[in-house]
Amino acid sequence: MTLNEFGSSNGKTVLVTGGAGYIGSHTVVELIENGYDCVIVDNLSNSSYESVARLEVLTKHHIPFYHADLCDHEKLETVFKENKIDSVIHFAGLKAVGESTQIPLKYYHNNILGTLVLLELMQKYDVEKFVFSSSATVYGDATRFPDMIPIPEECPLGPTNPYGNTKYTIEKILNDLYNSQTDLWKFAILRYFNPIGAHPSGLIGEDPLGIPNNLLPYMAQVAVGRREKLNIFGNDYETRDGTPIRDYIHVVDLAKGHIAALKYLDNHENKNKTGICREWNLGSGKGSTVFEVYRAFCDACGEDIPYEVTGRRAGDVLNLTAKPDRAKEELQWQTELDVEVACRDLWKWTTDNPFGYQLNGIESTFASPENKYNARFVTIGAGSKFQATLANLGATIVDMKVDGQSVVIGYKDEAGYNCGPSSCYIGATIGRYANRIAHGKFQMNGEKYNLTINNGVNTNHGGLGSFHIKRFLGPLVKNPSKGVYTAEYMLIDKDQDTEFPGDLEVDVLYTLNVEEKSLKIEYHATVDGKATPLNMTNHTYFNLNKVNNPYITGTELQVINDRSIDVDENTIPTGKIITREIKTFKDEQATILGPQEPKYDHCYVVDEHKVPAGPDTIKDGTLTVVARAYHPESKIGLEVSTTEPSYQVYTADWLEAGYLPRQGFAVEPGRYVDAVNDERYKRCVTLNPGETFGSEIVFRFY
Amino acid sequence: MTLNEFGSSNGKTVLVTGGAGYIGSHTVVELIENGYDCVIVDNLSNSSYESVARLEVLTKHHIPFYHADLCDHEKLETVFKENKIDSVIHFAGLKAVGESTQIPLKYYHNNILGTLVLLELMQKYDVEKFVFSSSATVYGDATRFPDMIPIPEECPLGPTNPYGNTKYTIEKILNDLYNSQTDLWKFAILRYFNPIGAHPSGLIGEDPLGIPNNLLPYMAQVAVGRREKLNIFGNDYETRDGTPIRDYIHVVDLAKGHIAALKYLDNHENKNKTGICREWNLGSGKGSTVFEVYRAFCDACGEDIPYEVTGRRAGDVLNLTAKPDRAKEELQWQTELDVEVACRDLWKWTTDNPFGYQLNGIESTFASPENKYNARFVTIGAGSKFQATLANLGATIVDMKVDGQSVVIGYKDEAGYNCGPSSCYIGATIGRYANRIAHGKFQMNGEKYNLTINNGVNTNHGGLGSFHIKRFLGPLVKNPSKGVYTAEYMLIDKDQDTEFPGDLEVDVLYTLNVEEKSLKIEYHATVDGKATPLNMTNHTYFNLNKVNNPYITGTELQVINDRSIDVDENTIPTGKIITREIKTFKDEQATILGPQEPKYDHCYVVDEHKVPAGPDTIKDGTLTVVARAYHPESKIGLEVSTTEPSYQVYTADWLEAGYLPRQGFAVEPGRYVDAVNDERYKRCVTLNPGETFGSEIVFRFY
Repeated sequence: MTLNEFGSSNGKTVLVTGGAGYIGSHTVVELIENGYDCVIVDNLSNSSYESVARLEVLTKHHIPFYHADLCDHEKLETVFKENKIDSVIHFAGLKAVGESTQIPLKYYHNNILGTLVLLELMQKYDVEKFVFSSSATVYGDATRFPDMIPIPEECPLGPTNPYGNTKYTIEKILNDLYNSQTDLWKFAILRYFNPIGAHPSGLIGEDPLGIPNNLLPYMAQVAVGRREKLNIFGNDYETRDGTPIRDYIHVVDLAKGHIAALKYLDNHENKNKTGICREWNLGSGKGSTVFEVYRAFCDACGEDIPYEVTGRRAGDVLNLTAKPDRAKEELQWQTELDVEVACRDLWKWTTDNPFGYQLNGIESTFASPENKYNARFVTIGAGSKFQATLANLGATIVDMKVDGQSVVIGYKDEAGYNCGPSSCYIGATIGRYANRIAHGKFQMNGEKYNLTINNGVNTNHGGLGSFHIKRFLGPLVKNPSKGVYTAEYMLIDKDQDTEFPGDLEVDVLYTLNVEEKSLKIEYHATVDGKATPLNMTNHTYFNLNKVNNPYITGTELQVINDRSIDVDENTIPTGKIITREIKTFKDEQATILGPQEPKYDHCYVVDEHKVPAGPDTIKDGTLTVVARAYHPESKIGLEVSTTEPSYQVYTADWLEAGYLPRQGFAVEPGRYVDAVNDERYKRCVTLNPGETFGSEIVFRFY
Repeated sequence: MTLNEFGSSNGKTVLVTGGAGYIGSHTVVELIENGYDCVIVDNLSNSSYESVARLEVLTKHHIPFYHADLCDHEKLETVFKENKIDSVIHFAGLKAVGESTQIPLKYYHNNILGTLVLLELMQKYDVEKFVFSSSATVYGDATRFPDMIPIPEECPLGPTNPYGNTKYTIEKILNDLYNSQTDLWKFAILRYFNPIGAHPSGLIGEDPLGIPNNLLPYMAQVAVGRREKLNIFGNDYETRDGTPIRDYIHVVDLAKGHIAALKYLDNHENKNKTGICREWNLGSGKGSTVFEVYRAFCDACGEDIPYEVTGRRAGDVLNLTAKPDRAKEELQWQTELDVEVACRDLWKWTTDNPFGYQLNGIESTFASPENKYNARFVTIGAGSKFQATLANLGATIVDMKVDGQSVVIGYKDEAGYNCGPSSCYIGATIGRYANRIAHGKFQMNGEKYNLTINNGVNTNHGGLGSFHIKRFLGPLVKNPSKGVYTAEYMLIDKDQDTEFPGDLEVDVLYTLNVEEKSLKIEYHATVDGKATPLNMTNHTYFNLNKVNNPYITGTELQVINDRSIDVDENTIPTGKIITREIKTFKDEQATILGPQEPKYDHCYVVDEHKVPAGPDTIKDGTLTVVARAYHPESKIGLEVSTTEPSYQVYTADWLEAGYLPRQGFAVEPGRYVDAVNDERYKRCVTLNPGETFGSEIVFRFY
């Protein structure tokens, strides 16, 4: 998949209701790829916000999310007030045929009222384009008429269950509303056949809460051992193998059908002075039996999963195969992916995410008073002997707990981290330029840059609005093997956003290993347009004895060596590397931190004879232990390793912003102080277009 | 119409949604006649509470009313909490076909959500019987099928407008809900054809707000001059005269169809262990063209009203005539009244109420903090030079205004009137026995009765819970001719309710004449079961100079004569009639009331030689002026006339309950003090079954 590059938005914002769900999330990907901005509204009744966090990483776009029920007029109105909506794609709705026969009132109430409130607000806010997620279920049993298979849009409707009745009613509402103002409304009614498969990235897919109601997700759960066997509802239909025939359509094809419909409405808007209300089948035109799909899926997953044929299910009909000609002709859309591809993609999604978006050991909480969904704290390894809590803001380490004991300082919500000039970067990702740039000045490819001065005469830890106060995209959270969790944050930092040149894309990948009690941080970045200086680190303040004492007093700190960058009274490097008189790791003796002394705020050099050749120290360097710390009272030890050539050690003697001096110490691996202004070091902090930046830090506890 | 006698309720309470509306109100009459109790919920969006007030008088039953929108779950739940509902008849809904094509969202939202909330609450409160007001509109154009006129219930549905779609959808909801629990739900879906006509009493009928959407009310408004001419929408249909054919059904027949359906559900409940969901046409089976109905109506009103043929109306179909066989067979119901009767009844309703329930010069306000609808103050003659404000509680005179100036005392809401033992009966209707009964004892037909003593050793102004704190039914308010207003209140006071014998039915009829500045009060009553003592009056306290002085000081009071009933120290009559030394009307000289003296609290006799022969002084007596009063400062005069043989004059020297002594004076015509215990007078205060009680008082201002 080729994503649009930044800034190629067509300026149109699409409100996607139910955008966290199966079809909704896949459609958001296609919308963004096609230049639309998306706002998602979802009540998460049958979906997870995780899908939206993953969409942000997958699409590299911020996606505003509202946790709202469409029936809640007031909440939904906020969405229209806060965003300039151009069109609406309406997926939200209860959709289980079987359940709908048990609790029909809930289906009618939710699906119909939700749509009415949405349309009322569209009317109020002058939004006229609407793509509706209908269903082939509205046709009911099309075999009751002669020559109606494959089913054309003209087939008389006759749904046979409450779910289908709600879709049918909404179609009527749309027709009636259109007829009340035929010059105004532009409605596309899309009658889906059977959506299956998943995004080829394996990042998003179908993740039904509870027992799946559809064939494919059920088979997938059987294949990964979550369910015992597949139930096949009836093999006594009049078909080639006795099982009912459906028109299965890859969800990515289906998603693309929405873009085709939306563009059709856009064009219609431009060309005509009238509105439109029209139905299109979205199907392949090719029917498959349940057994045929079963076969394809077994081929994809490499084993024959157990199944049992049980009785027919209420509301099921013999054959629902689309006549897709109208969509092909008018929308220039047709399916491109077949059942086999869908089964392969489903199997990738299933094996990558055997429990869908529901991961044990992951917890999310809101980190802003307004419960903004992308202002979250995500804990990975939750409930285990080692866990880390991370924030979108600054891709910050909010907390780490070793055997249940917190060993770092951090705030309880975003307000703490957003404390302005007195910010101490607590736990945050630092960029674009960690540590000082002398006088805030540098040159890159002959161009001179001036950054905002924020530290004496220098710029420290990035320019204006640096990474620690940026809201990162994601995270994409995974549990790739037992006891290992990853959380990937992404930041798109465009040219001059933070006073630096070039469009930068940064990935921050946290990997937590419970058994090893280690948290690995990887920074990866590429730049587009112009070269940029880049030097990243993490600014966690540790207090290994925090459970007993808010101060670091008594911590035994060992630093790998005593060679350090010499600086003048303005903390500008003199160009020399000097020896500092401290006990080092090499002595096998630790420095014991007292209440006031010794004070550390020096940049140590791992090996003064070995300067990285380029911006990727992961590729070019080796992982070296640079510091250890231990506290005899808590008996917790820390080892810091990195691929970076230097590391600042800081005993927090100027800590403020809600904390007091010496309530933590920081070990900040990175590149040499002011390297961008020193020809010996400049290459390794210069990222050119086409290059990759890499750096790795590991915090391991013992 | 024969109404059930009191106490013949079958114990079942029916919640009638939209019960203030056209079909709803007529059905309430039939329900009560058939022994059901009714609770009405209505949002009054297209109806008036006046219809409910009239229903109370017409049915002689209290009808709890909730001003609530069905979409308001919380408010509607109150109804279910406060009443033991046995079944629901659901009329509420927007119903104008033409309007529905203009504002379809409102129709879907209101009609469908209202029904869903109602059904959700029925589910929660275990109410399972439901009669739904559907419409023949669900069939759409039945002529599109061969042999479907007259239309049977099996005719495929296909509504052609949003209104019909909402009815169709609700039918689907009911079917789906029934199918989810077939042992539980009992649903009757009644598909109305065209309801016309009105109740033969002329008290209730169709009263559309705004321009009528239906043929008959439109014709009626043309006939009384409210509209210029009738529009006939198309005379080019393929019918005998070119106008569309409809099956018109008298609204009383239609109402009876609901009783038939409800009884069918009741019986089904008793006989079967299963539920039911079934549709019945309610129609006559006889189609009439628009021109035929036009002819019948012109015959009824005696003139050919003007009409114009205009184009066809969107959504209209050729022919909607019912096949009514299923209802006849299963519900034992069929129409009994034809179009001619309906037109006559409509004409009576129209001529009695040319502006329906909307009367100029009538204003209502709530008189209780909870905004209970039958706790109302109704002002008749509002905005004119003479007006009276009346309350349901005690059928009380709350205020009278002469040329804009209030001349009586009264409270601002019911709380004032409900002040318990210290009540001073301000403005109230007094009964069953005005004035004193010695020692609270009397005999009637050989039986001895003891009343609660409330005044020294006597019972004054009725027994426990006497009329002044009873909530009267109604009022039925009319404007029979220019400047004349009537308000009729009714009270059903059953045997022993107020410690008196016999089931008493009392009417209090106020007639206000603006030009004459007079308020006439008529009391009419009958008793059932046992004979009762009866003596009624009104206890208004006048202060003709209230606008200038809260005290009656300076009032020139003239009393017709000086002969008065002598009483002992316990205010028990001695049996003598004595002369009191006061200046009388005969002297043409008034007594001037001072700040403290003279004190009046005497019962004067109109003519000691002329005792009424029976309980009806209107029939047997003559209207005589008994007192006059005038205040030179306000220049307002009062003349009190009555058909009664005596009148208490009271200068309020013991007034309390928020007022002070001598803030008003009362002239209370009635029958002799303790007459029930004096054989000379007892006959005129004895009401036997089969007799009528009558009495009249007129307050006229000059």
